[in-house]
Amino acid sequence: MPITRVPAAPVCPSTGRLRPLGTDEVRITGGFWAERQRTNASATLPHIFAWLEREGWLGNFDLAARGGLPDGRRGREFSDSEIYKYLEASAWQLGNEPDAALEERFRATVARVAAAQEPDGYLNTRFGRPGQGARWSELAMGHELYCLGHLFQAAVARGRTAPGADDGLLGVAVRAADLVCDVFGEGGIAAVCGHAEVEVGLAELGRLTGEARYVEQARLFVERRGHGTLPDHEWGRAYYQDDIPVREAEVLRGHAVRANYLSAGAVDVAVETGDADLLAALRRQWARTQSRRTYLTGGQGSHYQDEAFGEDWELPSDRAYAETCASIGSTMFSWRLLLATGGAGYADQIERVLYNVVAAAVSHDGDRFFYTNTLHRRDPGVAPDPDAASPRAFSSLRAPWFDVSCCPPNIARTLASVAGLVATTDADGLQVHQFVPATIRTALPDGAPIGVRLETDYPSAGAVKVVVEQAAGRPWTLTLRVPDWAGGATLMRVGTGERVDAEGAATISLTGDFAAGEELVLDLPMAAVFVHPDPRIDAIRGCVAVQRGPVVYCAQSVADDASAPDLAGVVVRTDVAPVPADSGVRVSADWPSPAGSAWPYEPGEAAPAAATTGELLLIPYHDWGNEGLCTMRVWLPAR
Amino acid sequence: MPITRVPAAPVCPSTGRLRPLGTDEVRITGGFWAERQRTNASATLPHIFAWLEREGWLGNFDLAARGGLPDGRRGREFSDSEIYKYLEASAWQLGNEPDAALEERFRATVARVAAAQEPDGYLNTRFGRPGQGARWSELAMGHELYCLGHLFQAAVARGRTAPGADDGLLGVAVRAADLVCDVFGEGGIAAVCGHAEVEVGLAELGRLTGEARYVEQARLFVERRGHGTLPDHEWGRAYYQDDIPVREAEVLRGHAVRANYLSAGAVDVAVETGDADLLAALRRQWARTQSRRTYLTGGQGSHYQDEAFGEDWELPSDRAYAETCASIGSTMFSWRLLLATGGAGYADQIERVLYNVVAAAVSHDGDRFFYTNTLHRRDPGVAPDPDAASPRAFSSLRAPWFDVSCCPPNIARTLASVAGLVATTDADGLQVHQFVPATIRTALPDGAPIGVRLETDYPSAGAVKVVVEQAAGRPWTLTLRVPDWAGGATLMRVGTGERVDAEGAATISLTGDFAAGEELVLDLPMAAVFVHPDPRIDAIRGCVAVQRGPVVYCAQSVADDASAPDLAGVVVRTDVAPVPADSGVRVSADWPSPAGSAWPYEPGEAAPAAATTGELLLIPYHDWGNEGLCTMRVWLPAR
Repeated sequence: MPITRVPAAPVCPSTGRLRPLGTDEVRITGGFWAERQRTNASATLPHIFAWLEREGWLGNFDLAARGGLPDGRRGREFSDSEIYKYLEASAWQLGNEPDAALEERFRATVARVAAAQEPDGYLNTRFGRPGQGARWSELAMGHELYCLGHLFQAAVARGRTAPGADDGLLGVAVRAADLVCDVFGEGGIAAVCGHAEVEVGLAELGRLTGEARYVEQARLFVERRGHGTLPDHEWGRAYYQDDIPVREAEVLRGHAVRANYLSAGAVDVAVETGDADLLAALRRQWARTQSRRTYLTGGQGSHYQDEAFGEDWELPSDRAYAETCASIGSTMFSWRLLLATGGAGYADQIERVLYNVVAAAVSHDGDRFFYTNTLHRRDPGVAPDPDAASPRAFSSLRAPWFDVSCCPPNIARTLASVAGLVATTDADGLQVHQFVPATIRTALPDGAPIGVRLETDYPSAGAVKVVVEQAAGRPWTLTLRVPDWAGGATLMRVGTGERVDAEGAATISLTGDFAAGEELVLDLPMAAVFVHPDPRIDAIRGCVAVQRGPVVYCAQSVADDASAPDLAGVVVRTDVAPVPADSGVRVSADWPSPAGSAWPYEPGEAAPAAATTGELLLIPYHDWGNEGLCTMRVWLPAR
Repeated sequence: MPITRVPAAPVCPSTGRLRPLGTDEVRITGGFWAERQRTNASATLPHIFAWLEREGWLGNFDLAARGGLPDGRRGREFSDSEIYKYLEASAWQLGNEPDAALEERFRATVARVAAAQEPDGYLNTRFGRPGQGARWSELAMGHELYCLGHLFQAAVARGRTAPGADDGLLGVAVRAADLVCDVFGEGGIAAVCGHAEVEVGLAELGRLTGEARYVEQARLFVERRGHGTLPDHEWGRAYYQDDIPVREAEVLRGHAVRANYLSAGAVDVAVETGDADLLAALRRQWARTQSRRTYLTGGQGSHYQDEAFGEDWELPSDRAYAETCASIGSTMFSWRLLLATGGAGYADQIERVLYNVVAAAVSHDGDRFFYTNTLHRRDPGVAPDPDAASPRAFSSLRAPWFDVSCCPPNIARTLASVAGLVATTDADGLQVHQFVPATIRTALPDGAPIGVRLETDYPSAGAVKVVVEQAAGRPWTLTLRVPDWAGGATLMRVGTGERVDAEGAATISLTGDFAAGEELVLDLPMAAVFVHPDPRIDAIRGCVAVQRGPVVYCAQSVADDASAPDLAGVVVRTDVAPVPADSGVRVSADWPSPAGSAWPYEPGEAAPAAATTGELLLIPYHDWGNEGLCTMRVWLPAR
């Protein structure tokens, strides 16, 4: 359907199966995500700003403005992008809730960025000045276009949450985008950036401004990739997806953030150009990536070395890289496919990522982060230095900042805009994809108003009540996602007693001319269950995990707690069902005494001498690593 | 015991439990290793020389001699070392068998190296000239001392196989070693090289020349390490073992080549200085590394990113790095411990590495190499470019050369000197550690002559006949290693019928005043058996491997063979014993049809729809990848 009114949403396709509702239409009123949004606003955003200043990454713009570069420049080649992601996160947060101090900081930051822009629109603190590499001279690893992509997304967020704001950010973005089109358009430099991102930025900026040139430039970048315009790489051109044209690829591969950002941009291009073949190719790639290259948590990326996807079934728990940003990229890709096709499975992946990667990657206090999200930590490691940027993956505790610190502002912008992933509409009615206490006010394409309130303790409980607050004045269909983990879901119209079973379908619906005050209740089974992996995932053969609703659980053993369980030798009994406990779930387990020998490979299976038996407490994976150095595992050897 | 006569052996401690026999005393006369030595001499050495020339790494020395550096320099910072390892390999080969052409090439290469040495003894093509980094300015990653360590080992090999040769190599080494002592001795630069190697080189050069200063310098380097004289590293100072003093460490960690080279040098220091505490610490580290951080093949190093050991039990098959050089370093470490202590288990590790890493890392033709030695290859990859240096780990086929090409000349020097790992003596008699057709001529410390011939088809068959060719004139003890995989070994004195059982011991012995012509026969059980891993090795839970004698087997599926087996879904039946076959071993297997689903984690174990049943041929792991692009796995899911 053609989409007319543009909501304050991160992705606003001009056409598609479903219309996204913006953060102006969906207001989160409480629960799991409201609490995280509060922490995001009160702790994470100020924390990020402080580190951007202390590391000098924001100061780079000041140096650029006064001609001081390159001498004093600090940070990696992509550090500009972190300022843009901070701006994007701030824009979404200001859209959620006015805040004079944040607004002032936002404007001041935009002014510092704008002052660094050159007259022709070029904006990057790392290239183009005497003593620096020439503009566009290091496309493979220089991240210039990548940075601009994040600038464009920031401008789009501001443009949609504060239309007509006079801060100047949109103008900065437009000038830069015009330059990109001049330089990289037909007849220009026929190459791509080593790190995809400018594609989504250009597409959304085009959607916001109506400038078709930007979408066309995104199309050019997507089409060019895979033709080897980038130099070969030690890890192969697959590292930056320049090995195979996007429409010919069969699965996501290479650097997992790049792969997901590229795929998201390619969906935008497919949708805006009506390219059904490209869209179908991306759906196939998503499906195979999901079924063979994704962790139980929704995390993606198996390799430390190249931060890359492994091959099919290569999903080691203990070296799971599962970069936070890759999962966020996966939500970008998945949400776009959902809007284009209406497929509910895409929202399953988003839910997994939100509860088990995004929520896990930030500490309870909001000022410590995981860059990688392993599923098995054998060694507690050492605590990160609270006063210095940390390496990307080395401790069981979150770090305040990283030498490569893409993840913290990526989490911040995702949390601030999470309401934009909750619901959509089409001509027939409202679709609820994520279950969160919220109010929804929107209108169907024919103008019929939709006003509902969502009440739920999800994911603690499986009941989701939809209270109609405003009658539409005509029949419409309420559709709710049935998560892939939920067998036996039901939806009931309380007033009439009408009740439908999901019967294995991915959504559940009821149609009616609902009156104000009517209640409909989705009931999802929320028992903790053992989950078994496909036998082709070698790394976790013979293991089980525990999941309750969308939440993956893990065993944690705090290093300085003498009573903490041994996680190296534990064997879980799957004949005893998991039992809810105060802070998690308890399972029965044995601790066989390992035979132990000088050489760990023996003819004949070693019979353990004896076993102690007991219970093992599992906690939500997103809560791990908040109580001190520890070991942890999601997948548990099973008997 | 004090060791008097110095054999032509890579390691010649001045004291120790066992005295090594040199390649002048042990002559390999046929069988598995003789064939590989022939290929090494006829194909591998010329191949390496050609690549050293074409890549310009040898030419760097010519440029240095005529003042042409740094402009034309080619190769990485450690490329000098490959020339030195080539020289070492050539020296051992010339000791095995005179060859006028090789001798001439050896001397010409030495002359080119010598011409590049500076008047004060400094020798490195990468540092110290205008336009280059200053000498010793990049100790962490510059590899200057590492390169010199290999120079010293080359000079030692030449000094022991051609004492008094007038080629000048020993003089080059001595001048460089004197400079190292001047610069890094007490009161000098108090730091170490990021890549250990100079320690073994200095210790052996000291042993050869009698220069105590060199051993003392090795001691200083060993003692200094672990005190953080190197800068912190993204992957931690453990990367170059600068995190913990050698004598305080509990296990090998960090970069696996560096860790093993350092440990080998530390044993040399412990032995020469009588440091029993240091030796005990190294034995403990070896034992824990062996029992928890070593692959079935003897390979070591679990990480691609930092080429490093993983944590205890972290031994993924599919991302096994198992660098060829790390295993060679492990033989250096193990052999030194064997000489110092007499422990037979050290020779078990050497045997594993020789048959399953060294023999696997070079192609049948001798001109293609594996840098890494994975135990599971899921994707065949693409064939390496035959005319270019390859990345280090990317294909199921061996490559002619690498951008970092440490492994080919390391294999060459190991194969050329392998006779030096076969046997030792002590006051009581002869110890045979590796089973290979050979003649041994030596003398016990009291002058009693030992002359025996070893006859065996090992590892094809388990009988090892020791034929006495020269009577010692007094009783002596013949001791043979009983490998850790060999239950039920016996040793029989044929003439008398005297027979002993190993009864679980690591060696088996008979004492007698053996007459010339007498035969003693060791009988080792050589059935193919299933091997089970310690349950704490998560990555191969529920899997078995097949081993026959020292040889590890694997399943291989050649990509262009339509009848090749599917290795992703195979399940081996362990209730049916492996059956010998022409080219390997056959096992019974099922191929269940995987359930397959959009999301590979499900409540309840997926029951496969059906299974086909058949046989799976396993081949020796060291033979894999010689028949075209393929998939491969050592560990097989078991029922």
